[in-house]
Amino acid sequence: MRTFVTGGAGFIGSHLVDRLLALGHEVTAYDNLSTGIGRFLDDARSKPGFSLVQGDLLDTAQLREAMAGCAFVYHMAANADVRFGTEHPGKDLEQNTVCTFNVLEAMRALGVAEIAFPSTGSVYGEAAVFPTPEDAPFPVQTSLYGASKLAGEALISAYCEGFGMRGWIFRFVSVLGERYTHGHVFDFYRKLLGDPHNLEVLGNGHQKKAYMYVHDCIDAMLLAVERAPGTVNIFNLGYPAYIEVNDSIRYIAAHLGVSPKLSYTGGDRGWIGDNPFIFLDVSKILSLGWQPKVGIEEGVVRTLRWLQQNRWVNEARL
Amino acid sequence: MRTFVTGGAGFIGSHLVDRLLALGHEVTAYDNLSTGIGRFLDDARSKPGFSLVQGDLLDTAQLREAMAGCAFVYHMAANADVRFGTEHPGKDLEQNTVCTFNVLEAMRALGVAEIAFPSTGSVYGEAAVFPTPEDAPFPVQTSLYGASKLAGEALISAYCEGFGMRGWIFRFVSVLGERYTHGHVFDFYRKLLGDPHNLEVLGNGHQKKAYMYVHDCIDAMLLAVERAPGTVNIFNLGYPAYIEVNDSIRYIAAHLGVSPKLSYTGGDRGWIGDNPFIFLDVSKILSLGWQPKVGIEEGVVRTLRWLQQNRWVNEARL
Repeated sequence: MRTFVTGGAGFIGSHLVDRLLALGHEVTAYDNLSTGIGRFLDDARSKPGFSLVQGDLLDTAQLREAMAGCAFVYHMAANADVRFGTEHPGKDLEQNTVCTFNVLEAMRALGVAEIAFPSTGSVYGEAAVFPTPEDAPFPVQTSLYGASKLAGEALISAYCEGFGMRGWIFRFVSVLGERYTHGHVFDFYRKLLGDPHNLEVLGNGHQKKAYMYVHDCIDAMLLAVERAPGTVNIFNLGYPAYIEVNDSIRYIAAHLGVSPKLSYTGGDRGWIGDNPFIFLDVSKILSLGWQPKVGIEEGVVRTLRWLQQNRWVNEARL
Repeated sequence: MRTFVTGGAGFIGSHLVDRLLALGHEVTAYDNLSTGIGRFLDDARSKPGFSLVQGDLLDTAQLREAMAGCAFVYHMAANADVRFGTEHPGKDLEQNTVCTFNVLEAMRALGVAEIAFPSTGSVYGEAAVFPTPEDAPFPVQTSLYGASKLAGEALISAYCEGFGMRGWIFRFVSVLGERYTHGHVFDFYRKLLGDPHNLEVLGNGHQKKAYMYVHDCIDAMLLAVERAPGTVNIFNLGYPAYIEVNDSIRYIAAHLGVSPKLSYTGGDRGWIGDNPFIFLDVSKILSLGWQPKVGIEEGVVRTLRWLQQNRWVNEARL
């Protein structure tokens, strides 16, 4: 079975590609390399059955051509930049909603009937229930990113109902691990490289996050696709406990052997639309037999270690 | 205060324009007249302070120009064709999601900070709770129409949070009344004009609907905009009781003086994505002081009477 992975050169996408190849799947990765990184697929390129198509999801003709012959789609491509949504409000709509529509239309044209999709815990907005279950009270969106991912979820669900497809939707918390080149670990690492004595922290450091390690995340997705039998299967994915950003700063400082003076920009959130507390009820995926293997501190350290061993990423992005 | 009404030549939009003018507002109606009907604005055109701009919401330059000087937006324009979503899946996305984005972007550019938006009870998918409250369990979308309206809701909410706007979102059941040129009353009326002895009914006739009369609907919207103080205010709007399609057929047959032989296409829904039972909990809008003045049977009869008195609509669409 050939599997199609959009965003296959991205952080989670490239790990998924590696895993699928290791499991014996043939894989076509589709990525415009705007934020994906070709070197993440160096291992994959040496494997039989792998192909990379450099293409854009807005190019519907190329997308359809590349997807032909595939039986399953992991639609991992996204604008994952939650924080700067208000600076370019059209980007989330285009990248996360319209591109999802384009993927679904290509599937429909080709008769591809199964899709897995990473959504976000941000769709719960300011949740009223913690930990937040998949059937939490109908939330109000607070970020353009969450809104665009919810729209993607909605499109996939409607296509499943209307066109006989099946879908797996995963509401992620933040994911950490090798190849992670966004988010606070990456930011703090870069800041501390520049000045190990001072660190500015957005918000008050008390934002709570249930960071999940990338290989645990992929375990969960593959397990759900294998075992969840519904037409539309929605799962929260996250670590079943949380830390504060301040904890993470301690882990990072300890690993790097630095003692920066912290200054806080203040307020209970890092930016407009940031959510100070996303903590998802993951009992549904746990009940399928998933267990995370790597704790949050270890995930932070593995992320750092990879960044230290792969300075080219930092340089490529500075 | 000049008010901007997109879809101002449509069924609900044109009634809203009339009402706003009667209340002393200046009104700019913006409509591409693709489904809106210019004659619906015959009264409005005679009023001072009214202007109609024939324009498309995809034409962002014209939209912005037309909106300049307005202080409030009723974004009534939509593809309201729930039933044929699967025949043109891009239409809902374009008309109900992308166009809503365009309206929000025009507002942001011009500093217009308040928007009211008709969404749909279809966003509850196959609801698990009846009557369904606004904070029902997070639903799974079942129609492209519902998905596109939910995406519109989400965009509006995120803009309110991110850009200091305020929004009023109304989840409608089906609305009936003068100028209604879609839906089962219109369809049955046309079919019975052609053959008063036979009537084909989609589904089994047991689909339950809480039809709301258009002027009651407008009362509710205006009341909520006046009294609901939140950043994002979400209200179910519908009649607090329901009938079955079969009841409606009885009302129609009685009013027309016909006794058609009914044949049913079968199944518990009229089409893919149709929901056999949408019944919303409207206690939130009732608690603001709203009361519907026209019952469902009377709403059906008023719709029919208007169709009989305005044969030109029927002819224009046949």
